[in-house]
Amino acid sequence: MIGIKNIGSYLPNSKKSNYDVLEKFEISESFVNKKLGIKNVRVKDKLDETSDLCIKAYKYLDEKERIAKNEIECLIVVTQNPDYNLPHTSAIVHKKLGFSENCACFDISLGCSGYVYGLSAIKSFMQENNIKKGLLFTADPYSKIINPEDKNTSMLFGDGASVSLISDEPLFRLGKFSFGTIGERYESLISKNGELHMDGFDIFSFASKYVPTDFEKVLNLNNISKDEVDYFVFHQGSKYIVDTLRKKLKLPKDKVLFDIEDYGNTVSSSIPMILEKIIEEDKKMNIFVSGFGVGLSWASGIVYKR
Amino acid sequence: MIGIKNIGSYLPNSKKSNYDVLEKFEISESFVNKKLGIKNVRVKDKLDETSDLCIKAYKYLDEKERIAKNEIECLIVVTQNPDYNLPHTSAIVHKKLGFSENCACFDISLGCSGYVYGLSAIKSFMQENNIKKGLLFTADPYSKIINPEDKNTSMLFGDGASVSLISDEPLFRLGKFSFGTIGERYESLISKNGELHMDGFDIFSFASKYVPTDFEKVLNLNNISKDEVDYFVFHQGSKYIVDTLRKKLKLPKDKVLFDIEDYGNTVSSSIPMILEKIIEEDKKMNIFVSGFGVGLSWASGIVYKR
Repeated sequence: MIGIKNIGSYLPNSKKSNYDVLEKFEISESFVNKKLGIKNVRVKDKLDETSDLCIKAYKYLDEKERIAKNEIECLIVVTQNPDYNLPHTSAIVHKKLGFSENCACFDISLGCSGYVYGLSAIKSFMQENNIKKGLLFTADPYSKIINPEDKNTSMLFGDGASVSLISDEPLFRLGKFSFGTIGERYESLISKNGELHMDGFDIFSFASKYVPTDFEKVLNLNNISKDEVDYFVFHQGSKYIVDTLRKKLKLPKDKVLFDIEDYGNTVSSSIPMILEKIIEEDKKMNIFVSGFGVGLSWASGIVYKR
Repeated sequence: MIGIKNIGSYLPNSKKSNYDVLEKFEISESFVNKKLGIKNVRVKDKLDETSDLCIKAYKYLDEKERIAKNEIECLIVVTQNPDYNLPHTSAIVHKKLGFSENCACFDISLGCSGYVYGLSAIKSFMQENNIKKGLLFTADPYSKIINPEDKNTSMLFGDGASVSLISDEPLFRLGKFSFGTIGERYESLISKNGELHMDGFDIFSFASKYVPTDFEKVLNLNNISKDEVDYFVFHQGSKYIVDTLRKKLKLPKDKVLFDIEDYGNTVSSSIPMILEKIIEEDKKMNIFVSGFGVGLSWASGIVYKR
């Protein structure tokens, strides 16, 4: 049974405060606190490439797990801001970590739904190919494509990276997942000529409609009731979307995690960063996870912490 | 049992003849005929995006299979030249084909090893998620990034696309595959500032060493002897690399397919284009497939035509 053994993540030290741009963008402090829920966004060092963020996340994981490099036989990077378009960033990470030749590497191009998709993709690929240990990286530094004058995006997205050790001795077992796509609305989150454009209203409408629609399906697939779920980990898009989903689904406040005030929406890294924080909680848990965004795309499922 | 049900492919009509640049590049006709084995490379219409090439390949597939659009629950595009970096090209293909919301879409970033990797990834993802019909696209139009003055690349790569219908009623069943990466040498095939750079000698050395090294492993994994293989379908990099692999592995000439004289190296589309051609042969076959290139990366395996 392949699942998540451990998680490491990296946030750059450098912060940009949203309080510093209140006047410039003509917004109120209450908007920052109550709608965005993001006081600071993290910004990577200009010289750091996407692969470097992966390496920094790996160092944190390696401190906890002491990974034997020759045991890693699969390495996937989820990103839409790769070092180069060609080769894949996973090959560069493979080089920088000095992994063995006997290692399958590829990138998955997805945004905020990418971690949940990636879990299903790496688990199934490893099972099919009899691989016991793999790494799933997420690193999508939007600072590469954000126009600092665009208040829709510059106050929202922060840089960061995560890496999950996927193994046949998991701490989190993966249940059944559900996936969907509204390609029709792909232009609502798009990078054109190197600059990110977002129709925040459309993304919000999309997520607040389709995630709840899919919710019952995921519970049924996993034969679990809403009350049996200990935590609901939604993609940390903004406080407003997480609050909206919580209210729509009538979920208890203490079961819906939100924790990006000090770093921002890290795209595909937002869910693993939350999971990393609950690893230390010493109890069995059933966790609903749901990523949504670029595509427009969503992926939801249940993971079981033993 | 998930496998390949059918394949469609697309080649642009527009051709550039390598005989027209003999003088400019100071090369002989014999080099074109005997080493490259490529008389023409295809070039896509400037206005056609990567997703458009996918749609054109799909039309050929649909003529053979009459696909019910709502039955497609998984759509993967293998590319390193997407329409945009964000969103994934699969979401755009999803829109253009008008597929249902109930469809998992993501892109895989890989080059010439991408089809073989993609087969394993989509098969395992579909099995894990109980999906019966999916589409695996390959489309990597290098004309977007080739400098026409670069003889290393401009005489070699041609545009094209393929789509494979992956289903639980396969014509080609997938055996065991093997994967590897030499990230150390990723700079030998790289796109920098929008321009492709290739160290052809290093790619050649890599492929002529690692594909043969992996060959016995793949036969053993599949419990099959060399003589039981009916066709060897190597990535169609050039005539020289395919001839070299044939000689190194001591394979009979009529079992090693080569067929890109009129269109060039189409990256991840080269293997499915060959498989498409042997679909019509009315016999059971065991086929060795091997893709290698960008990364540097390779993937080899056996597929069984029933």
